[in-house]
Amino acid sequence: MNKKIVVLSGGVGGARFLEGLIQIIPQGKLFIIGNTGDDEQFYGLHVSPDLDTVLYTLSGVVNAKQGWGFKNETYNVMQQLTNLGNNDWFKLGDKDLAVHIHRTNLLKQGKKLSEITDELVGKFGLTVKLVPMTDDSVKTFIKTAHGRISFQEYFVKNRWQDEVLDIIYSSAEKTKPAPGIIDAILSSKGVIISPSNPLVSIDTILSIPGIRAALIKTKAKITAISPIIAGETIKGPAVKMMKEMGIEASALGVAQHYRDFLDVMIIDTKDKELKRRIEKLGIKTVVTNTIMKNNKIKKELAQIVVNTV
Amino acid sequence: MNKKIVVLSGGVGGARFLEGLIQIIPQGKLFIIGNTGDDEQFYGLHVSPDLDTVLYTLSGVVNAKQGWGFKNETYNVMQQLTNLGNNDWFKLGDKDLAVHIHRTNLLKQGKKLSEITDELVGKFGLTVKLVPMTDDSVKTFIKTAHGRISFQEYFVKNRWQDEVLDIIYSSAEKTKPAPGIIDAILSSKGVIISPSNPLVSIDTILSIPGIRAALIKTKAKITAISPIIAGETIKGPAVKMMKEMGIEASALGVAQHYRDFLDVMIIDTKDKELKRRIEKLGIKTVVTNTIMKNNKIKKELAQIVVNTV
Repeated sequence: MNKKIVVLSGGVGGARFLEGLIQIIPQGKLFIIGNTGDDEQFYGLHVSPDLDTVLYTLSGVVNAKQGWGFKNETYNVMQQLTNLGNNDWFKLGDKDLAVHIHRTNLLKQGKKLSEITDELVGKFGLTVKLVPMTDDSVKTFIKTAHGRISFQEYFVKNRWQDEVLDIIYSSAEKTKPAPGIIDAILSSKGVIISPSNPLVSIDTILSIPGIRAALIKTKAKITAISPIIAGETIKGPAVKMMKEMGIEASALGVAQHYRDFLDVMIIDTKDKELKRRIEKLGIKTVVTNTIMKNNKIKKELAQIVVNTV
Repeated sequence: MNKKIVVLSGGVGGARFLEGLIQIIPQGKLFIIGNTGDDEQFYGLHVSPDLDTVLYTLSGVVNAKQGWGFKNETYNVMQQLTNLGNNDWFKLGDKDLAVHIHRTNLLKQGKKLSEITDELVGKFGLTVKLVPMTDDSVKTFIKTAHGRISFQEYFVKNRWQDEVLDIIYSSAEKTKPAPGIIDAILSSKGVIISPSNPLVSIDTILSIPGIRAALIKTKAKITAISPIIAGETIKGPAVKMMKEMGIEASALGVAQHYRDFLDVMIIDTKDKELKRRIEKLGIKTVVTNTIMKNNKIKKELAQIVVNTV
């Protein structure tokens, strides 16, 4: 059977979930839609943080402690760029930079980001399908009291200390999904919304015209894993951002956020008292251990999610 | 007095000569015109080999053994680029790559190569004036039996094994000299043609409209150091290229090549029997030790050259 499981993924959280998933279903059965709203030009090089985090994590070369970048990385180019007077708030390792140089060079030659990503998947020894949400340019901006800043500026440079007044998926309305995405959703065996930031990872993907409609239309089951556990996240600013945007920062808030298309919600045992309230929304709710602190739990979570779709 | 000494320079040979020169005259008195005909895009990055060799050599960070690139260099990015399937015939170190990333980024932002070079000179702690021959694009091609190839392909990839049928300074006729060059030549205290390859370093500079005419017009003395000593060069393909182009591969051949504008020729003691024949061309000839095998000889040579202009 040719039907694939589609996964919407941001960076670290999504990649960690996918790490479990590829241990229980063949990579060839996976169609991963990656967020590119956080893509940025650094030193003139095109950086796709979320696509790379998925690539590096699934191929086992990631710096597992920080969740992104390569393990055993060096920073020789970065040191020299800093010596030459460049800003150094976005630190790129040497192996990582090679990927950005390679990608930027191919983009300059006219290749599409989706073609380049496909090629990189092979170079990293993977057989999943990994597709950027779009080949067009979308950029996530954060509106703050002192103006509009890029997501990376908010996230890395300012360490998410600014109050979020609004989130803008700039130019999203002019884009279209990368080739294959709509078909994959409509014909999929199931769709998984990974435990990524709902506002700046998943919503960014949903901002691409046609993707949300395809999720609503597909006959496949759609399951989300809550990135919020007992009012907190493992990593990153999701809770703070949701509160500032007036969204309840809980698994219930996430379920409400996705209720347009969501069939099943996976929540942590710490949130079991939310099950009844989520099910009232018409969303089947599964309670399990969602903190992927070891590979056993990672695989068990993946199996539970796969069983729902 | 504000008059400067102008030096036309290619890569390694020119840089080594300049290393002596900055020890006997203040850097601020030097106006160096660098060859950019060998500039190339590698992995989408703009590489200016000759400008960088001058920068790295004069600032003391060069790999003295090979004559180009940084000392204590690493190749971590290159290794990864090769892993990603890129051609690896042009090896760029990490520190070196940082310079190319920086330069390419500034070019993309609309800065001129001359502005960027000026800024790099400062970052490398130098006070010489170093100016690319032009801000426009000129590319040296070598015509071979199997077609036209770029200079770097001829030089690095094919290790100058092809027979040179012709040398093409592509688009040179459409370019103009970088700001300040013509004025510097016309108002200079003296002009030095460094011991660089006459065909692919100096002639490339001379291919920029206006530069040769300024050399003919200037009242300043013009002195060249022969890169050919007893029919050989210290490094590189000058002798082979000259022979294949039908030019006598000797200090006499070099003097004849520059006779339009040349006042003084510096030749090696090994070539002392050529002195009379060069002087017959109306070119004053100084015989000295031109093999810069240690710093003492380098400085002595520089002093002798400076005394002639």
